[in-house]
Amino acid sequence: MEKATVSRATLGRLPLYLETLEQLRQDGRRNVSATVLAQILNLGEVQVRKDLNAVCSDGRPKVGYEITRLIDCIRILLGRDKKTDVIVMGAGKMGMALLDCNDFAEYGISVIAAFDTDPSVRGTSPTGKPILPPDFAKQLCKNGNIRLAILTVPADAAQSACDLLCDCGITAIWNFTPVTLKVPESVTVRNENLALSLAHLNQKDSNTTR
Amino acid sequence: MEKATVSRATLGRLPLYLETLEQLRQDGRRNVSATVLAQILNLGEVQVRKDLNAVCSDGRPKVGYEITRLIDCIRILLGRDKKTDVIVMGAGKMGMALLDCNDFAEYGISVIAAFDTDPSVRGTSPTGKPILPPDFAKQLCKNGNIRLAILTVPADAAQSACDLLCDCGITAIWNFTPVTLKVPESVTVRNENLALSLAHLNQKDSNTTR
Repeated sequence: MEKATVSRATLGRLPLYLETLEQLRQDGRRNVSATVLAQILNLGEVQVRKDLNAVCSDGRPKVGYEITRLIDCIRILLGRDKKTDVIVMGAGKMGMALLDCNDFAEYGISVIAAFDTDPSVRGTSPTGKPILPPDFAKQLCKNGNIRLAILTVPADAAQSACDLLCDCGITAIWNFTPVTLKVPESVTVRNENLALSLAHLNQKDSNTTR
Repeated sequence: MEKATVSRATLGRLPLYLETLEQLRQDGRRNVSATVLAQILNLGEVQVRKDLNAVCSDGRPKVGYEITRLIDCIRILLGRDKKTDVIVMGAGKMGMALLDCNDFAEYGISVIAAFDTDPSVRGTSPTGKPILPPDFAKQLCKNGNIRLAILTVPADAAQSACDLLCDCGITAIWNFTPVTLKVPESVTVRNENLALSLAHLNQKDSNTTR
């Protein structure tokens, strides 16, 4: 089954669809239409129709979608058919919060270890995950076929930590530092500038309410 | 001086402009053009021109911008002219990471306190900020004229914590829970679904590299 790509917005609604479809299947239903699903979830019918179409091309007029087939397609898109392991580079407060965050499981993602140059933070996290020296990253990534990394080191260490990640075979970096990273063309970077997000919200708020 | 609104992208470049302009002023320069600033920063001239135009309408052909005036405009947009205090509802790992995060200062924002229903997490954070019972939020927000809050409680407590924040006079909520919050029309919500961000990055990576 070839894996489709869906938009971020659609991806965000998939856990909700999945839960509802699993409930419907439990209730003994075999098929469901976009119309019915939209009514149950109180969502716009056009939106649901578009989402389901992006997820699975097997919808049929009048009959709708076969629920089991739709569940399979959504599970694959959500990565529930296989586990994706991720590492964190930088075990400061944000790194530790992401290392022990439970929310990623919904998307089949598990943060399995953190790395830090500071020996005093090494050991295990509150949920028992290892915090290791950066030297260990290459072997762990190779053995575990790890392609995703979260970067939460201080700004002045960002580029060198990024270089190490690329050297480890990482192909996608979720960058929490404010630094514009230089990476090979084959590596994807998603910048997560939290300070900027809060500042932008503050700016909007200042202009609407004061 | 009326406060302009700039795009998120422009806002993100302002700290860089500010640093450069302060350096130029120190070097004894009085005026700067978008062309020169673009060269120094290795940015596109069209982009810099657009940014500066959004920041300050006083640019003059041939002369460029008065550096001191530009610095003042940027400082206001970055909130450096006044401090904005923010609270965190929910002192779990993410709440604590945001409570002690230093990156917000660049935008004149200070996270001053966290609130949690769990007495065992109360006290002070590693950097000395208070973690208080939620009952204290209303008075603190009123006394400090606080309008922004970060929501980092577990999903099942999200709506009730949100209701409390609205009751405290909060007008903008940065929502780290996966819950779609119900708020009065006067309240702005920015959803920060980190799990979805990572899942989306994973999806893109899976499709490009495997």
